[in-house]
Amino acid sequence: MIRINNNFNRLSESYLFSTIGRRVREFEESNPNVRIIKMGIGDVTLPLCSAAVHELVIASQEQGSITSFCGYGPEQGHQFLIEAIIENDYLPRGIKLHNNEVFISDGAKSDIGNIGDILSVDNVVAVTDPVYPVYYDTNVMAGRRIIKLPCLETDNFIPHLPKEIPNIIYLCYPNNPTGIAMTRDQLAVWVDFARQNKSLILFDSAYEAYITSNDVPHSIYEIDGARECAIEFRSFSKTAGFTGLRCGYTIVPLELKAIDADGHMASLNALWRRRQTTKFNGASYVVQRAATAVLSGKGRQQVRQCIDYYMHNAEILRRGLAEVGLSSYGGIDSPYLWVKAPGGMSSWEFFDRLLTDCHVVGTPGVGFGDAGEGFLRLTAFNSCENTLEAVNRLKSFSI
Amino acid sequence: MIRINNNFNRLSESYLFSTIGRRVREFEESNPNVRIIKMGIGDVTLPLCSAAVHELVIASQEQGSITSFCGYGPEQGHQFLIEAIIENDYLPRGIKLHNNEVFISDGAKSDIGNIGDILSVDNVVAVTDPVYPVYYDTNVMAGRRIIKLPCLETDNFIPHLPKEIPNIIYLCYPNNPTGIAMTRDQLAVWVDFARQNKSLILFDSAYEAYITSNDVPHSIYEIDGARECAIEFRSFSKTAGFTGLRCGYTIVPLELKAIDADGHMASLNALWRRRQTTKFNGASYVVQRAATAVLSGKGRQQVRQCIDYYMHNAEILRRGLAEVGLSSYGGIDSPYLWVKAPGGMSSWEFFDRLLTDCHVVGTPGVGFGDAGEGFLRLTAFNSCENTLEAVNRLKSFSI
Repeated sequence: MIRINNNFNRLSESYLFSTIGRRVREFEESNPNVRIIKMGIGDVTLPLCSAAVHELVIASQEQGSITSFCGYGPEQGHQFLIEAIIENDYLPRGIKLHNNEVFISDGAKSDIGNIGDILSVDNVVAVTDPVYPVYYDTNVMAGRRIIKLPCLETDNFIPHLPKEIPNIIYLCYPNNPTGIAMTRDQLAVWVDFARQNKSLILFDSAYEAYITSNDVPHSIYEIDGARECAIEFRSFSKTAGFTGLRCGYTIVPLELKAIDADGHMASLNALWRRRQTTKFNGASYVVQRAATAVLSGKGRQQVRQCIDYYMHNAEILRRGLAEVGLSSYGGIDSPYLWVKAPGGMSSWEFFDRLLTDCHVVGTPGVGFGDAGEGFLRLTAFNSCENTLEAVNRLKSFSI
Repeated sequence: MIRINNNFNRLSESYLFSTIGRRVREFEESNPNVRIIKMGIGDVTLPLCSAAVHELVIASQEQGSITSFCGYGPEQGHQFLIEAIIENDYLPRGIKLHNNEVFISDGAKSDIGNIGDILSVDNVVAVTDPVYPVYYDTNVMAGRRIIKLPCLETDNFIPHLPKEIPNIIYLCYPNNPTGIAMTRDQLAVWVDFARQNKSLILFDSAYEAYITSNDVPHSIYEIDGARECAIEFRSFSKTAGFTGLRCGYTIVPLELKAIDADGHMASLNALWRRRQTTKFNGASYVVQRAATAVLSGKGRQQVRQCIDYYMHNAEILRRGLAEVGLSSYGGIDSPYLWVKAPGGMSSWEFFDRLLTDCHVVGTPGVGFGDAGEGFLRLTAFNSCENTLEAVNRLKSFSI
């Protein structure tokens, strides 16, 4: 008899987005003439920048010619993209990386999900609450014990160091869903904690391109000692609109060690290389070419314009919410705003009121964890016109 | 202290392709004027067909416009591709599939590697010997016990049913590396065995497009009862030259059940869907568009021409080997030939002799498992000119 991985039975089914979908559908059916503005989804709305499109088309055409066809590439990615990443994303911040510390993939979600393959199921894991569900669910699937780190309004949603020492700590900054970023000093506290306790930080910086504050680090390797305790995940999804194209990368420093059952030290870089060469065959070649174009002078400029556009929306939202007396967080170093439900409403009550009164859809904060109760996430991934219109509609919102 | 997955220590490092590379390099350095013909690599050599290139370019251009931009798609794949697969790859063979039984991915290697996530590590696994190393290594990583099924020349490389009942059985037909295919009757023996013993067959049919014999099934679902016991993995890599683009798919029938720790039956389809939605974000949209074009009338015709080209090479090789008195297998329903080393030579001795005497590079069979000793794999993925030249050089080969 085939036996399943029994940990899957411990997963709680998430009905968050299906419930949102159903409520919106029901409202639309009862109110067919109303135009709803959807600010709940975390997908980008602007098209791919022309530098990336141009390169994607050229690389595609080259696949049609025997002299320029490219088949299997290295599982860990093509050197041209690895070098462009080191040169553009790290060197300007004083971070030196070896080519073999960068692993290209089909996206950060895959890497964040698969990294667990190289780590013992006996490790204790810490995740924030609220949280991007992938950190939590993938560890439930593996059968690891999970500690939650509540992120409270009174602490500006920055978690406290836990009393029990976790072996693995997931940090996502700028944060999804709260939109809050950690300053250098705040992140240094966690790096020091991880080094002292020989814990591993899995640092998700998918939203680093949205940082505007000077004291917020773009990479965890800006913090002294992070090379000894942190793996960093990055993505072209939110930075360059690659949510459909699929490309991300993971940095595993050569210094990073962990212990095996016999007490010997093992290189996490070597283990991840073995995992990727065995279970993965590389990201799409044409997509890697497009990602390289994003990192060119022209690409960087075009992508900057997209991010500025979204961050202008975030600014409109932030000011608009304040004007109508709603407290919100985030939106300065991230495309997400974490809006406090007024008058002690629950996340879902606030969701329903926004939908029926303003015809605006957000994401109930409680869907990201218990500590998200009483909040709602709005995103800046929308047109400027829709964002202005949403803010205008909020004026009719009354508690 | 962070603990590693200790099973990684049980992996044996494969030096097969690096050793081949080193020996070829050394020979080239000592013989700079010799042109070596490489017939060891399993990558395609013909460019992408024009129908796929055309669609890839259109989809890429559409990503540059706000009205046609496509961001996140469904993790399990776009419906347009799922429908094209069902209509073109299955319905014509009398196999009916539901749309939610087809899961699109970035390639069969990923799915074959990741499928273990949903299965208990207590399952006993059977793999053939010789074997595509991914089946073996991914189960060592997970800590499963592995039974080897020797495939011997006296049995035309078809494995016998094992005495000990495995929970999971990997079958790859047409086979890599032996090039041998299973007939309907031979595969039916395994389907019956799996049903009787409630085992799961993981069927890799990455090379089904190369089948020319009428009694060889293209899909395991051509065999009665396979929907109750088999998952099928397919790929656009070898079928349509997508080794660089990355696209594959996996069929998980709704009937397929396995047992949980409490003795309840669980749907493997539901578990795989949960795994993929949690740890994967879909294959690249533009690549899924190109894969759909491969399944169009024009695409199928163009891809057929490429496969015929390779199979013509396989025929040249097969006849050429026979003419010089070398025994070989395969090459009729697959692009691989499994050549017997003459005069009791070992795989590596034969490799060295072919390199030095004929300047032809193959892959030593022992690199795929102990039972591969005394054999060598040659591939038809080359130009017709090189294949003819290789056969010509074989005439100078003497034992």
